[in-house]
Amino acid sequence: MIRHTVSFALVHAEGSAEEAAFLARGREVLTGVPGVEDFQVSRQVSPKSLHRFQFAMTFADETAYRAYDAHPAHRDFVASSWEPEVADFQELDLVPLS
Amino acid sequence: MIRHTVSFALVHAEGSAEEAAFLARGREVLTGVPGVEDFQVSRQVSPKSLHRFQFAMTFADETAYRAYDAHPAHRDFVASSWEPEVADFQELDLVPLS
Repeated sequence: MIRHTVSFALVHAEGSAEEAAFLARGREVLTGVPGVEDFQVSRQVSPKSLHRFQFAMTFADETAYRAYDAHPAHRDFVASSWEPEVADFQELDLVPLS
Repeated sequence: MIRHTVSFALVHAEGSAEEAAFLARGREVLTGVPGVEDFQVSRQVSPKSLHRFQFAMTFADETAYRAYDAHPAHRDFVASSWEPEVADFQELDLVPLS
């Protein structure tokens, strides 16, 4: 099991319609990609990071994760929304230890 | 609900006894602090971050989080283990959006 997370800051103003549209589109597109489980959007509220949101999702294994990464819907979202609208981000891939 | 996460890299060699001891002590001490729920240690496996582990825990609310932060067991862990043994870290505080 791999929990893939990405925290990010948008180029849009806080509370803007563009911010809400980005979050809604991310949820819609990414939850539609096969293999994505337990998708969660969170607000990042610590002042110790400039990131304001996080997307998190679980993959059963590395194969499912790679299929997601290569999926056209994911690639299109990255090119058409993520790259122009995200100012900064950090990805983590987490494998729980017993 | 607040999910507090901190990803980090240790000063210790990968797979060392010191690394294992740090993770075990962190789990032991932090799960003993009142208010800490769903404590999870994960390995961070993405090559896009130099961090190698993550601690994650849930607090019911801001009051519980502040009590944890001020708790002597937490403060002692930070001073005696975290500060000398952690090379780099990043904290995030995540509040799920519906």
